[in-house]
Amino acid sequence: MAATRIAGDVLAARIKADLAPAIAAIRAKAGRAPCLASVLVGDDPGSIVYCRSQAKACEGVGITYDLVQFPADTPATALAAKLDALGADPAVDGILLQMPLPRSINARDMAERIPAAKDVEGITSANLGKLFFYEGAALIPCTAAAAYELIKFAGCTIKGAECVVVGHSPIVGKPVACLITNDLGTCTICHIETRDLKAHTTRAEILVVAAGKAGLVTGDHIRPGATVIDVGINRVPCLDEKGQPLLDEKGRKKMKTVGDVDFASAEAVAGAITPVPGGVGPVTVAMLLRNTVRAAETHIA
Amino acid sequence: MAATRIAGDVLAARIKADLAPAIAAIRAKAGRAPCLASVLVGDDPGSIVYCRSQAKACEGVGITYDLVQFPADTPATALAAKLDALGADPAVDGILLQMPLPRSINARDMAERIPAAKDVEGITSANLGKLFFYEGAALIPCTAAAAYELIKFAGCTIKGAECVVVGHSPIVGKPVACLITNDLGTCTICHIETRDLKAHTTRAEILVVAAGKAGLVTGDHIRPGATVIDVGINRVPCLDEKGQPLLDEKGRKKMKTVGDVDFASAEAVAGAITPVPGGVGPVTVAMLLRNTVRAAETHIA
Repeated sequence: MAATRIAGDVLAARIKADLAPAIAAIRAKAGRAPCLASVLVGDDPGSIVYCRSQAKACEGVGITYDLVQFPADTPATALAAKLDALGADPAVDGILLQMPLPRSINARDMAERIPAAKDVEGITSANLGKLFFYEGAALIPCTAAAAYELIKFAGCTIKGAECVVVGHSPIVGKPVACLITNDLGTCTICHIETRDLKAHTTRAEILVVAAGKAGLVTGDHIRPGATVIDVGINRVPCLDEKGQPLLDEKGRKKMKTVGDVDFASAEAVAGAITPVPGGVGPVTVAMLLRNTVRAAETHIA
Repeated sequence: MAATRIAGDVLAARIKADLAPAIAAIRAKAGRAPCLASVLVGDDPGSIVYCRSQAKACEGVGITYDLVQFPADTPATALAAKLDALGADPAVDGILLQMPLPRSINARDMAERIPAAKDVEGITSANLGKLFFYEGAALIPCTAAAAYELIKFAGCTIKGAECVVVGHSPIVGKPVACLITNDLGTCTICHIETRDLKAHTTRAEILVVAAGKAGLVTGDHIRPGATVIDVGINRVPCLDEKGQPLLDEKGRKKMKTVGDVDFASAEAVAGAITPVPGGVGPVTVAMLLRNTVRAAETHIA
């Protein structure tokens, strides 16, 4: 029997709807909408797409989205000065720094300049550190928070469950593992140096895959009935039946978005699985909106 | 064959000796020794013992140990004011807040008042959060850092190893898991809700036990040849051959200090194991000294 598809778009819509009263309260109290400042340096095509979709999502719930653009050759000092100014600006509730930054700029140093209370991506050390404590954090990294919310949305009990996270990044893998551990799931973090990935993933009742590698996890890796959360967003060529790339009318390779999980084989084994697109992605955006509202509530209180 | 005993006291002595040039450099530059302020509220007997041993260890390497004592009924505001004053005092390099605090005081709020740069126990969110990043943190929680140094001292390669941490506390279990994961060990965090502890621990090539429960892990839990780091420090009654408590000349139960691992049975299976006492304990104190020196170096630079 094919796995249940965990509808990220449905959860995202619910989370957005749930924000309405808080946004109305902020408007009433502050005389303005919550405001998210988004800082984009350069013209990375992926980042531009993200900015557009964030702007649309903000508009949809009544959050002001303020895009601050810098050319790619902006010196680090100018970017730092702008981040400090946004940090001090009482009209700005949340600050989002689009990644990747140009290589000439130390991304971590810049991220750490964002005041913790306005760090709506939850990427500063000060916010990440709160994940060690059981009470959790207010501003959790959006993708990690999305994976966690989707586990709960799928109806899983984390407490006591065998959980495996594939991917150990600072902003997704390790934070998800902390959230699971705080809820008393037994969590293993796997990564590129894990000797026998399948031995771990086939134990997992809850499997979160955040490795950034298309098709890394197949049906063979999955315990029958497991809940699978696919965090990957990979652009890959569309192939024909012979495995050759399909071309569009201009002769360019046709591309599609897939996760880290091979959906077709995984769906036949898993109990529930997030599709890509339509799984973690929309919930990640909803988490950004939720974090912005939480930051505004603290800021305006 | 009995396991090799991992000599924490030898490692601690080495770490302390290695601090000498840095301490001399600080003295030359600042005209004073590095200074650790230790704040003790109330008269918890365990804390008093710790303070004495910390004072002795500081004296041994040439760090000034400044014990600041408050009565148990000190209001939170007074403690907060003192922590703020120590934070601002240029003559203080590190601040240590003895736990437990009286119940009337929120321990976490107080810990978070310590400036990250003087947080030599590595317990503030700002320092803990740095553990998510591969470059690691300068001020790592002392016990977690001790467990990690002992793994390396035992000659283990963490990269690729199957590792299990028993205990998921914010200051020991989760930080150790982060350190292991950053070094590309495959790490599982177990705890009180883990359904089959033995199934996990018997997989572990590196096993760190930080559960705070005497004798939780026995030889049966250990993979033959594994490296076992016992973080537990538990006071238990000495028993006679019949399992009855032994009494001292005043009729009080004789007590001894044991770890979370049943040493006798574990020693017969493990490849290497830390004794208690004499394993993690002395290295934890050495980590406190190292953190104080690191904080002073930053502070005085």
